[in-house]
Amino acid sequence: MSLDDKIRATIDGYFEGFAKQDIDLLMGLFSDDPSVEDPVGTPPHKGRDAVKAFYSGSLTMDVELTPDGPYRIIGHEAMFPFWGLVTFEGTRMKFEVIDHMTFDDNGKIKTMRAYFGPSNMSPAEA
Amino acid sequence: MSLDDKIRATIDGYFEGFAKQDIDLLMGLFSDDPSVEDPVGTPPHKGRDAVKAFYSGSLTMDVELTPDGPYRIIGHEAMFPFWGLVTFEGTRMKFEVIDHMTFDDNGKIKTMRAYFGPSNMSPAEA
Repeated sequence: MSLDDKIRATIDGYFEGFAKQDIDLLMGLFSDDPSVEDPVGTPPHKGRDAVKAFYSGSLTMDVELTPDGPYRIIGHEAMFPFWGLVTFEGTRMKFEVIDHMTFDDNGKIKTMRAYFGPSNMSPAEA
Repeated sequence: MSLDDKIRATIDGYFEGFAKQDIDLLMGLFSDDPSVEDPVGTPPHKGRDAVKAFYSGSLTMDVELTPDGPYRIIGHEAMFPFWGLVTFEGTRMKFEVIDHMTFDDNGKIKTMRAYFGPSNMSPAEA
């Protein structure tokens, strides 16, 4: 499988992991020493234990992610747009995100940075 | 105007500059010492003269850019998805891109990196 195909499969798996709320599936997508910064500007979660704790927390927020356009894949990097629904302090919120990931030669995630800001968050429509 | 609003206006101007094929409008969006890497993985164009030469070349290729989703703006960074049509060696091509930009305090572009790869390019439909 080409690196491009491996990366594509990893991103597909990322959405599948959220859809199934499967933390083991998600963690199987990450390299040995990952870093996750979500959103950009917050302190990164470094190492598998910290990353697992972060995603385990996310899965308690009833997250639904929907891809919103083709994955852009170049070399060991990818960008992909999506929108998400999440329950935060009792309110259902919509947020529009672009994730940037870098990958190792096996297509496992080395780094993830999630781009969204105040203008990308709104109360979800009923 | 907030930095968020300045960044939004700059990205709007970027699309407007291409629509009007106006190199001066485009160059007015960049800081004093910009860097442009398009696509990611190619040698960056560094400095205003190199950046101007790059965009002047692009404008000869009958480029049409269409935004394809909200701008994600966080701090001094933004990501935005779009698709473009360009005539390359006589063939009309479609390419799907996410640009990553960083900005100075005035919302002028310091760096741009364009993310697209082989899987994001295809002959344009007639």
